[in-house]
Amino acid sequence: MLSAKGLVESRPKAGTRVRERAQWNLLDPDLLAWMFEGEPPASFVRSLFQLRMIVEPAAAEMAATFRTDEQLARMAAALDGMRRHGLGTAEGQAADQSFHNTILEATDNELLVSLSGSIGAAVRWTTIFKFRRRTKPRDSMPQHHRLYEAIRARDTVSARAATLVLLEQAHEDTERSLLE
Amino acid sequence: MLSAKGLVESRPKAGTRVRERAQWNLLDPDLLAWMFEGEPPASFVRSLFQLRMIVEPAAAEMAATFRTDEQLARMAAALDGMRRHGLGTAEGQAADQSFHNTILEATDNELLVSLSGSIGAAVRWTTIFKFRRRTKPRDSMPQHHRLYEAIRARDTVSARAATLVLLEQAHEDTERSLLE
Repeated sequence: MLSAKGLVESRPKAGTRVRERAQWNLLDPDLLAWMFEGEPPASFVRSLFQLRMIVEPAAAEMAATFRTDEQLARMAAALDGMRRHGLGTAEGQAADQSFHNTILEATDNELLVSLSGSIGAAVRWTTIFKFRRRTKPRDSMPQHHRLYEAIRARDTVSARAATLVLLEQAHEDTERSLLE
Repeated sequence: MLSAKGLVESRPKAGTRVRERAQWNLLDPDLLAWMFEGEPPASFVRSLFQLRMIVEPAAAEMAATFRTDEQLARMAAALDGMRRHGLGTAEGQAADQSFHNTILEATDNELLVSLSGSIGAAVRWTTIFKFRRRTKPRDSMPQHHRLYEAIRARDTVSARAATLVLLEQAHEDTERSLLE
């Protein structure tokens, strides 16, 4: 398992050794989960949000163009689950992850769908992490609704803008909880 | 190996079965290589270039800001290798891959570095694929030089623009070789 994930390598006669961290696939969902078990380094959290800022606004634009009615219905159901359970609960967090995964799925790009494992894991773990801390994070439901509305209306410009606002708030709240 | 890569799953009493393709991690470099062993589906090639168009212009901007002199020297050496060996040779293709990997490394974002395994594999396999065909692809050295110059000059706007031109030409040539 560790070898298939590229964490260690085995060579004939040289034995098994841990590979350099730069060669690890940090996007592997299992590895992301392990990173968030502890206190992730600040540089790692920053890298994660930079990646989300690159991928998710573009994905939201594509989703606004290509989403099907069935995907839209799943996004609505996810929003409903987030509101009903609250993001401090496991059910609410699963709904949040499902909301963001459905956006990536709606891009109709199978490589972006492949990234949803990692981005979904990142969404889930940063939320858990935020709620583990003292201060309650700000409500992100209005931003999620704005993003949903833009994708429903097939409005690519608003979908990108709403994603940027959502990510900026999430990044600020995560950084703040790291300082506590 | 197949299980750690998420291609199959084993459940107690149910046995081992192949997971749905939507759950495969298509960004895995080994999996990318397997896809390009045959004729990759047109939709897959399109997805790959969409992903590169999302990630690489942003990465080039970041590289123009954060690159070290040592990384710049490695990019220059890679360009030299590409010119000397030509992109039709294995050595030239390795240099091309090294050029693009060094840009991702120069972003100073460890998650983008993690993507370099997949993007590097994609760069290499699309080049091999283009050269397998009848028509010689267009020379991409001027575009690579322009990108290098922008990163050297720490010019983020030109670095983004040069990457877009480079990717558009690569995408056109790859699509064309699929039609042959």
